[in-house]
Amino acid sequence: MTTTLHYGDTAKVLADLEPRLGTRMTRSEDVRRHHGTDEGWHLPVAPDAVLFPESTAEVAAIVRSCARHRVPVIPFGAGTSLEGGVAALHGGISLDMSGMNRIVEVNDDDLDCTVEAGVHRIQLNEHLGKRGLFFPIDPGADATIGGMAATRASGTNAVRYGTMRDNVLAVTAVMPNGDVVRTARRARKSSAGYDLTRLLVGSEGTLGIITEVTLRLYGIPEMIGGAICSFGSLEGAVRTVMETIQLGIPVARMELLDELQVEASNAYSGLTLDIAPTLFLEFHGTEAGVAEQAEQVQTISAGNGRRGWEWTTDPADRARLWKARHDAYYADLAARPGARGMPTDVCVPISRLAECILETRRDLDASGVWSPIVGHVGDGNFHLIFLLDPDDPEEVARHREVHHRLVRRALAMGGTCTGEHGIGYGKLDYMVEEHGEAAVAVMRAVKQAIDPGNIMNPGKVVPDAATSPAREAPV
Amino acid sequence: MTTTLHYGDTAKVLADLEPRLGTRMTRSEDVRRHHGTDEGWHLPVAPDAVLFPESTAEVAAIVRSCARHRVPVIPFGAGTSLEGGVAALHGGISLDMSGMNRIVEVNDDDLDCTVEAGVHRIQLNEHLGKRGLFFPIDPGADATIGGMAATRASGTNAVRYGTMRDNVLAVTAVMPNGDVVRTARRARKSSAGYDLTRLLVGSEGTLGIITEVTLRLYGIPEMIGGAICSFGSLEGAVRTVMETIQLGIPVARMELLDELQVEASNAYSGLTLDIAPTLFLEFHGTEAGVAEQAEQVQTISAGNGRRGWEWTTDPADRARLWKARHDAYYADLAARPGARGMPTDVCVPISRLAECILETRRDLDASGVWSPIVGHVGDGNFHLIFLLDPDDPEEVARHREVHHRLVRRALAMGGTCTGEHGIGYGKLDYMVEEHGEAAVAVMRAVKQAIDPGNIMNPGKVVPDAATSPAREAPV
Repeated sequence: MTTTLHYGDTAKVLADLEPRLGTRMTRSEDVRRHHGTDEGWHLPVAPDAVLFPESTAEVAAIVRSCARHRVPVIPFGAGTSLEGGVAALHGGISLDMSGMNRIVEVNDDDLDCTVEAGVHRIQLNEHLGKRGLFFPIDPGADATIGGMAATRASGTNAVRYGTMRDNVLAVTAVMPNGDVVRTARRARKSSAGYDLTRLLVGSEGTLGIITEVTLRLYGIPEMIGGAICSFGSLEGAVRTVMETIQLGIPVARMELLDELQVEASNAYSGLTLDIAPTLFLEFHGTEAGVAEQAEQVQTISAGNGRRGWEWTTDPADRARLWKARHDAYYADLAARPGARGMPTDVCVPISRLAECILETRRDLDASGVWSPIVGHVGDGNFHLIFLLDPDDPEEVARHREVHHRLVRRALAMGGTCTGEHGIGYGKLDYMVEEHGEAAVAVMRAVKQAIDPGNIMNPGKVVPDAATSPAREAPV
Repeated sequence: MTTTLHYGDTAKVLADLEPRLGTRMTRSEDVRRHHGTDEGWHLPVAPDAVLFPESTAEVAAIVRSCARHRVPVIPFGAGTSLEGGVAALHGGISLDMSGMNRIVEVNDDDLDCTVEAGVHRIQLNEHLGKRGLFFPIDPGADATIGGMAATRASGTNAVRYGTMRDNVLAVTAVMPNGDVVRTARRARKSSAGYDLTRLLVGSEGTLGIITEVTLRLYGIPEMIGGAICSFGSLEGAVRTVMETIQLGIPVARMELLDELQVEASNAYSGLTLDIAPTLFLEFHGTEAGVAEQAEQVQTISAGNGRRGWEWTTDPADRARLWKARHDAYYADLAARPGARGMPTDVCVPISRLAECILETRRDLDASGVWSPIVGHVGDGNFHLIFLLDPDDPEEVARHREVHHRLVRRALAMGGTCTGEHGIGYGKLDYMVEEHGEAAVAVMRAVKQAIDPGNIMNPGKVVPDAATSPAREAPV
């Protein structure tokens, strides 16, 4: 593997590009620090310089220079990643994509659009809403579409609409040699060759820089109904989710907030919810369809100790509710002023969800670790949000152990070490445990083939070969 | 590129494996010829030998031997591919997967199952039906699940349920060095590393041999309603499809048969349909939901010159209808006894569908080429089925030209050269035109990295570098 290569001098890249970018590059310490830091808990590492391209051609010029001088290049969207994805572990260039925030085209008749990578999800939905369309994928943060594609993000609507994996039709990407690749046409399906779209989605900038994304869109449903219901027990809430999914009810959103999260969200977002395990639900469809789905879930939840059913079809009410849900992490940070947030996520098959969540709750309590449990439970995906003093080594160690047990528990149940946050460098150590040596060797071979100089976000996603036996050549 | 490498002697592989496979290997001419032939029109090429593994471990042993002796290895499912995928262009071993046809597990609560690659789709659905579940992907033929995954197949339900891309949760595959890789866990979503599942789905045996597939399942809908409606014009039928999709009506199936196809299917399948452009529709949902969807489509089609609306919820009626649809190709073959079938497919954005189909119809008529137009039009995907005398060079040339114009037309409209049949070696020449040199170079790099000896179904999917400029190394 090539991470021990000596990288070249970033100054040479800056010298190359100065005539083209002018003031759209900086070595300012503040800007560099900002671009090496995300919203997670992993050590930030500032890049040597930050560049602000405004077109795919400029990104290609930058990457060609980085390739020539063997300088790492790390794309930066909104900086809202959680596993250290933007940390410049080996120095180099941060590519700030904020200058590429144009909505290139919206094809109403095909229910698709093409946007530059720096477009934010809220910006996109404001644009689409005027045309009666929406894009459903919504991680908590107002991330960029490029960042969401790169990390295979999902969010609250994934239970019905899928994740970025399912909703990216094509990307334009600058490959490590500076070639510009368009991964697919706009046809809804194709069996023409390797699925480069899906190879780049989730590759976290380690195989190429995504500069444009073509997305699948949806018409805003005729009717949207939202419900909040609390439960006598965490188990009752989770069983309601499991039964709803197993019956195939096409619920659009199905979010769990445990007692701690409800308390924090009440305080931060001005809600007045009962302090109890709570589901936020949303139903999309025709008027009759929504009524029917809601009735089915009411019946299921009644059998699981539901205590209330607050129903709304008012857009303003719903917006307030989902804003509160998206702000859950910020609510938790506010609940413990001065503490550092340490968010993580796992995902398990739905049949194991209750077991996984309840065991995790017991572990948290037994370990004296404060963390809400909150998540996109309709997918089997949930989050812990630790809040701790990063300067207290005992506290850090204790939380790391709980985190480690959480991941191990999810893997033992046939789950994954991350449902939607990605690997970055924070979860690198779980890659072999989750996928096995042979699969990681395939990922390594792909990385090596596409990025032989290892300049694309080095040190992320694919663990070094050193941690696993070398792959045997086939001949 | 490595296709000009000298391959080794298949006899050495047979000698290696004889102790293990015994009589489960053959060089019989009939068996070899059968395994080099598919249902398409491309020149069949028999392998040197056919082996019948019964486990992933046996496949791994075979592949290790093939790697050691540099002998090509080509997986064979049902032999129903259409672009020459099973032709042994460079000799070697055909791996007949029929001995791996066990349904390994069905997880009712997680709506997933794991099957060996040789399981057929009808066999699977018979098994699942008893449990109230089904797997929706249904290419016309009774293909194997492994073959369907390898070619990224779809079929009539894809408009609602997606293709193999969307419905394969994970595969077990034997890589070219004999390593066994499991590409993902059973969690519904994951952002843990490169998407090896989607890399193998659609790779047509050129990157690894798929031996097991984990599939997403669905509960059999509470209500299924089917409709047949004919139209005064082809345009009216296609416009009905476009408007239905654009309105987001969650129709489960939406199939077009033009007049020629209706005539052929009437004769072959004993139907008595009006000889007119016709849609076969199916709606899945609750009773109220199905009624609502059907009503919406009735309104849309009435505005487009619909002439009838034959409705049924009777399972036997529906089964007969869809059997006839799946048998369309065989009906066409029967309509022209002695002729050779030459099926092809393209897929375009839905907004271009009417234009593409109508232009194609005019081209067929002007060229004196007999071909029905039939397809999964809800996806923008349709098929031509030429029937010709393969020994008449003028006729072959004329059909090839129409075929070439069809693909060019689809590409010019932002479409793909194949929606669901795959590339095999039949559509290799369109890869660069569809994806561009740079994207094909990435595919070639991936192929080279994973299969450096080029033993996995050589000559398929990824065109030789000779046809395009060499990729510049990034450093």
